[in-house]
Amino acid sequence: MEPKLADQLNTPAIVVDLDIAERNIHNFQSYADKNGFRVRPHIKTHKLPVLAHAQLAAGAGGITCQKISEAEAMLDGLQKNYDCSPDLLITYNILGHEKLDRLKALAHRTKLTVVADNMTVINGLSQAFANEEQPLTVLVECNTGADRCGVASPEAAAELARAIHDAAGLQFGGLMTYPPANAHAAVENFMAQAKQQIEASGIAVPLITSGGTPSMMSAAEAPVVTEYRPGTYIYNDRSLVERGACTYDDCAFFVLATVVSVPSENRAIIDAGSKTLTSDLLGLTGYGHVLGRDDIRIDQLSEEHGRLVSDQPINLKVGDKLRIIPNHVCVVTNMFDSVYIQRNGIVTESWPIAARGKLV
Amino acid sequence: MEPKLADQLNTPAIVVDLDIAERNIHNFQSYADKNGFRVRPHIKTHKLPVLAHAQLAAGAGGITCQKISEAEAMLDGLQKNYDCSPDLLITYNILGHEKLDRLKALAHRTKLTVVADNMTVINGLSQAFANEEQPLTVLVECNTGADRCGVASPEAAAELARAIHDAAGLQFGGLMTYPPANAHAAVENFMAQAKQQIEASGIAVPLITSGGTPSMMSAAEAPVVTEYRPGTYIYNDRSLVERGACTYDDCAFFVLATVVSVPSENRAIIDAGSKTLTSDLLGLTGYGHVLGRDDIRIDQLSEEHGRLVSDQPINLKVGDKLRIIPNHVCVVTNMFDSVYIQRNGIVTESWPIAARGKLV
Repeated sequence: MEPKLADQLNTPAIVVDLDIAERNIHNFQSYADKNGFRVRPHIKTHKLPVLAHAQLAAGAGGITCQKISEAEAMLDGLQKNYDCSPDLLITYNILGHEKLDRLKALAHRTKLTVVADNMTVINGLSQAFANEEQPLTVLVECNTGADRCGVASPEAAAELARAIHDAAGLQFGGLMTYPPANAHAAVENFMAQAKQQIEASGIAVPLITSGGTPSMMSAAEAPVVTEYRPGTYIYNDRSLVERGACTYDDCAFFVLATVVSVPSENRAIIDAGSKTLTSDLLGLTGYGHVLGRDDIRIDQLSEEHGRLVSDQPINLKVGDKLRIIPNHVCVVTNMFDSVYIQRNGIVTESWPIAARGKLV
Repeated sequence: MEPKLADQLNTPAIVVDLDIAERNIHNFQSYADKNGFRVRPHIKTHKLPVLAHAQLAAGAGGITCQKISEAEAMLDGLQKNYDCSPDLLITYNILGHEKLDRLKALAHRTKLTVVADNMTVINGLSQAFANEEQPLTVLVECNTGADRCGVASPEAAAELARAIHDAAGLQFGGLMTYPPANAHAAVENFMAQAKQQIEASGIAVPLITSGGTPSMMSAAEAPVVTEYRPGTYIYNDRSLVERGACTYDDCAFFVLATVVSVPSENRAIIDAGSKTLTSDLLGLTGYGHVLGRDDIRIDQLSEEHGRLVSDQPINLKVGDKLRIIPNHVCVVTNMFDSVYIQRNGIVTESWPIAARGKLV
């Protein structure tokens, strides 16, 4: 494409500032290197093989995906464009013949690890891999307070670890958790106990992996953790600014929108609604931050309209372009087929979002 | 594809029951026919040329789109597969050279109408169409209480109507509004006054168009309205059931999900999160309704996980398939590349969602 300023793009559009994204990648990699743990970024935030490659080149030990179709899309791009077959972790309970067949195909292409938190999943994985040449590495997912998936106690983790160790076609690879923010003490406590109990059965625990951008810069407070899986850190977003994890200067991703209507003195309408910004609030009020306009609240979204209100005159005119930092950047990436890339303040490329909409 | 029961699909998946969808189309068309107004369905709910064609075949006078790229995708499908060039309304303020060029191309392909609520948009449209053979039909968008876009008063509507009437390349086509639910009196009042004032200037008002599924079955209470634009009515969703507009038996669209974890007695996790169900609440509590399980609340979504809780034992096992009616069906359609089609209870086809992700 012809190089241009972001404000000249047709809207709504999403833009990644590569300079800031690279700085974010390196900042956390340096922290991890200094503290002696491995980084395995979650690709859900960018869904782009080229940025996964940048994370690996900076020192990441592998990548994390949530679904099989995401892993397939990322591996396709990394192998084709970079001849790169990263250590790949899918942090999801995988079930059913169709998914298990695809999992086997993935395992033939690269080093693959999955998780499980129940015997139905372990039995399914074991049946699928019993006749494979290489065993599948399986981690036990542990609930350290998020109350989503995960076994409830170190005892239950040890029991599943033994079941994986004994299952045909599988090898036990360690422990995985996705904790709430600032739960390092709970993670350390759960994981240290589980590790001790598993090792007492004569089984090694080679990997303990945790995640979450909000608490990543204090990850060393849970020294039992040997690997960390941040996702959002590469771009950052309003939720992280509001939690004090970064500033708007650290946000590498913005939505460009156009004012399409100014129907009253205190209200304006933009061409970015829930199909662009999504309805994710993450506990915040309003649907995003308009850069340079702290007075504006995005108080309502319909699918193609965003409503901006201010307590003072809104002082916008039809045709104005605005840059918006979304509440939750990962879900916005999933709404677009492609993303514009800015370097030194100039947009020079558009990249297809390879793992967008990969749900199964 | 091989015919199968929906419960055999790889999950998460979305399924349309064509029998129910056709019944929903015909019910509202009958009401409109009886009350003497035109139907122009909004395609944002299904985004499928084949269902737009079914709506037109049932008697709709045209279709409504929100964005130019949606209109392009729908027209492509309708012209290619059905040799059908419907009367097309884009209910959006259109701005900028790139969009205006695409608008001109659309106007060469079918009868096209757009809206405007300000002079910047009217001037842009006029410049773009001044040298076209056919004038572009423009409606004035009116705010009848939703406080989104739209002029604030009948006087302002009349002023813009005169400006459109006088502008090179444009012809005034009437009035458009997207009202809040149950606002028929406000619509009647605003539109009757605006019509009178415009006609007093010697300008005809050939069309007055309103919309919204929640109030569609009482649309005749605003007799000034000559056309209605329902969207969600073809599928229905939880928000409409909760408002009393329909029952779950009228819902033609469901999400199929699989239970992937049952970590405690009262909690289960499904493989459908905000990337499937979206975070749209529409004023409700919880993120969807599990058919047949009134006791279950979907109380939390992350991108790929939905958390189900119950005050009683949740009584689900890993691998169970659940059918979920989403809060807001239009936005769920936008999350998938294709939709499964069920007829007589059997899934026989998968259709690509032609207008998914069409944002500009």
